[in-house]
Amino acid sequence: MNTVELIKKKRDGKSFTDDEISFLINQFTRGKIPDYQFSALLMAILLKGMNASETAALTNSMLNSGKIINLSSLKRYKVDKHSTGGVGDKTSLIIAPIVAAVGIYVPMISGRGLGHTGGTLDKLESIPGFRTDLSLSRSLKVLGKCGSVLIGQTKEIAPADKMIYALRDVTATVESIPLITASIMSKKLAEGIDGLVLDIKTGNGAFMKSQKDSIKLANSLIKTAKSFDKEVIVFITDMNKPLGNYLGNWLEVNESIKVLQGKIKNDLYVLSLKLAGAMIYLGKKAKTLQEGETVAKLKIENGEAFKKFLEIVELQGGDVNYIINPEKYPKSKFVQKIRSKKAGFLKAINTYQIGMASLELGAGRRTKEDLIDHKAGIVFYKKIGDQIKKNEFICELHSDSITKIKSAEHMILESLIFSNTKPTLPKLIKKVII
Amino acid sequence: MNTVELIKKKRDGKSFTDDEISFLINQFTRGKIPDYQFSALLMAILLKGMNASETAALTNSMLNSGKIINLSSLKRYKVDKHSTGGVGDKTSLIIAPIVAAVGIYVPMISGRGLGHTGGTLDKLESIPGFRTDLSLSRSLKVLGKCGSVLIGQTKEIAPADKMIYALRDVTATVESIPLITASIMSKKLAEGIDGLVLDIKTGNGAFMKSQKDSIKLANSLIKTAKSFDKEVIVFITDMNKPLGNYLGNWLEVNESIKVLQGKIKNDLYVLSLKLAGAMIYLGKKAKTLQEGETVAKLKIENGEAFKKFLEIVELQGGDVNYIINPEKYPKSKFVQKIRSKKAGFLKAINTYQIGMASLELGAGRRTKEDLIDHKAGIVFYKKIGDQIKKNEFICELHSDSITKIKSAEHMILESLIFSNTKPTLPKLIKKVII
Repeated sequence: MNTVELIKKKRDGKSFTDDEISFLINQFTRGKIPDYQFSALLMAILLKGMNASETAALTNSMLNSGKIINLSSLKRYKVDKHSTGGVGDKTSLIIAPIVAAVGIYVPMISGRGLGHTGGTLDKLESIPGFRTDLSLSRSLKVLGKCGSVLIGQTKEIAPADKMIYALRDVTATVESIPLITASIMSKKLAEGIDGLVLDIKTGNGAFMKSQKDSIKLANSLIKTAKSFDKEVIVFITDMNKPLGNYLGNWLEVNESIKVLQGKIKNDLYVLSLKLAGAMIYLGKKAKTLQEGETVAKLKIENGEAFKKFLEIVELQGGDVNYIINPEKYPKSKFVQKIRSKKAGFLKAINTYQIGMASLELGAGRRTKEDLIDHKAGIVFYKKIGDQIKKNEFICELHSDSITKIKSAEHMILESLIFSNTKPTLPKLIKKVII
Repeated sequence: MNTVELIKKKRDGKSFTDDEISFLINQFTRGKIPDYQFSALLMAILLKGMNASETAALTNSMLNSGKIINLSSLKRYKVDKHSTGGVGDKTSLIIAPIVAAVGIYVPMISGRGLGHTGGTLDKLESIPGFRTDLSLSRSLKVLGKCGSVLIGQTKEIAPADKMIYALRDVTATVESIPLITASIMSKKLAEGIDGLVLDIKTGNGAFMKSQKDSIKLANSLIKTAKSFDKEVIVFITDMNKPLGNYLGNWLEVNESIKVLQGKIKNDLYVLSLKLAGAMIYLGKKAKTLQEGETVAKLKIENGEAFKKFLEIVELQGGDVNYIINPEKYPKSKFVQKIRSKKAGFLKAINTYQIGMASLELGAGRRTKEDLIDHKAGIVFYKKIGDQIKKNEFICELHSDSITKIKSAEHMILESLIFSNTKPTLPKLIKKVII
């Protein structure tokens, strides 16, 4: 096969055969196709698309570039959840213990935050001692023992995805539905799962800004999952405001603890129950999605979910004292309450900008090398739809730098839009595709 | 400016500003934009296009990446001809002496052959001693003395084009009208000319297979030329059969000599007069294209064109004895006449395949490093429209290898299509845009 002819084929809008896709991925992964040819191919794929069978073949080639975890020794159902990423999205920390408490395995491979979105790994690592870099054999032991394990992508998992993603990132070829699909699915299929619940975030704080694109991505993910005989349920959910009230790594662990203890019942709680419920339904521990939700709720109310979280933290080396007594966690040098400069109903939030304000405080990274301040972040007192008086407190900012607090305050106040009348709230769950 | 954002801009179908194009070309030429980003950009340009103002800015940036020859000391009109390349196209060798004999300067920078098409430089270099790599100052002397000089692209001329073309060649981004336009025009404008005649080849032996694409390219070239205040006339001409009867480097010089001496009056002769006539018209030595043609014809008939050719060859170091006595030129080891296996009218020719047969005989190169056998090639006895008997001779093949002759014979016989009735001949001149 000839690489230039294959690029030409996609450029002219034709479809690849499975063998052609396998050739392209294998040769690229082995360094036989140079970056400059592969990036031209990526641009052609982004602009000309790929059909379902090409997307499945691409996923398959990327999946098989690495190791596929063999979970056949674990006899119960294995399910994972994947979110396309948003601001304040910490549902993984809540869902994994709930579903594991029901007796379903949850092997979860998560990512780090970059830009305006946080990453599950960074949040977990804010727990002193918590290790997300367990070896595969150690991970399997933790999974077997407590029903869940939360780790990062190892070098053995889908290395082709790592190489391709690095190139997409610098060639404006990230926003391609088949490429996003193969990237997500190759990693998730490598986990050895039976089923997958997908949370596709839509809105001004998500990578997919429009619901139309989100539905396209949902359909592509579903088709690909099904071609690998995996069960899948997709939620399209709102990301026009941060999820929950806490932003920043330890602050988000803190909010997750409160949800797991049944102390907070906000949008984060509602969405976590929905997603966990779907996983429980897939795992045949409930007959309907609704019943799955009820089971999930029960696991919070009877304390089993929180107990399971403590178990996971302990088995992954984390110090459970901070989970039991979160108030003992070190505080930022400055915790400053911010007053509203306007009065009215909070109508809309530039969620991307809020994510960037949290990053500014020290909670995120601009480049992969940046260090994170685990304590830093934002706690919101107000949500969309709330009536706010002038000078009323709307949030508190946590940071070791007063300059950063000043600059984040400015960013946050800029990103709030007020109205005189009570606005209609954005729907949290926009669509469920089963 | 941020390269990824600029790639994204073109990917999303937006137009670049002059400054953005200048940034991209300058940074790429200086090695500040890596190949993998530039190739993604090239694919986005190929698929999303560029408007006339972007194409002009691109041409300008590529032109200014190198030296622009200053011909202001030469007071007469300066004109060049450019052909998009075909099989057997040797008009440059005929046109340059005709037009120079009229008293118009013809500074001509030509290319080498690659793939199925020949290159003017390779043809000229088949003349023993002929140098196409003259320095710019030496070239100016030759031009001043005899009115024409035929050289190759130096390192100083449009280096950005050289770098971009090398990348386009391996990333399936050659066939883009704005990129082709900028590549042609940046080199031609660097010659310091006042006017340009373009010969856009259309058909199965050309890069542009359809007349529609040829007209698009013509319009793009005209707009760009005019934005640089250059006069331009475009011919769209047939390339559904080789031009003239001789293929291969020395064989094509040989045919050019015969045309210049008025001994051959085939399609090559007709087209050469048309193109030279247009150059003479642009140079104000004729009031109409028709009158230009008449002047050109006269220069052949009165022997001045052939005399001018001898002058050029001599000034560029070539041995004129071979021009005066072409029969003294060394012959290929094997010169074999090929018989037709079919009977009927020659209806069509796969011209690309004929070009490849000539290459197979040794007349061309598959990669830039291949050596050329100057003697090798094909002389056709028959043309489209001719009635051919079974076993009648249709051509002769020249090569030092009998194996190559066998293989070329097979390729040629395969590429001829016969019919029972006399076919309509393809029109040589399809369109003139002035």
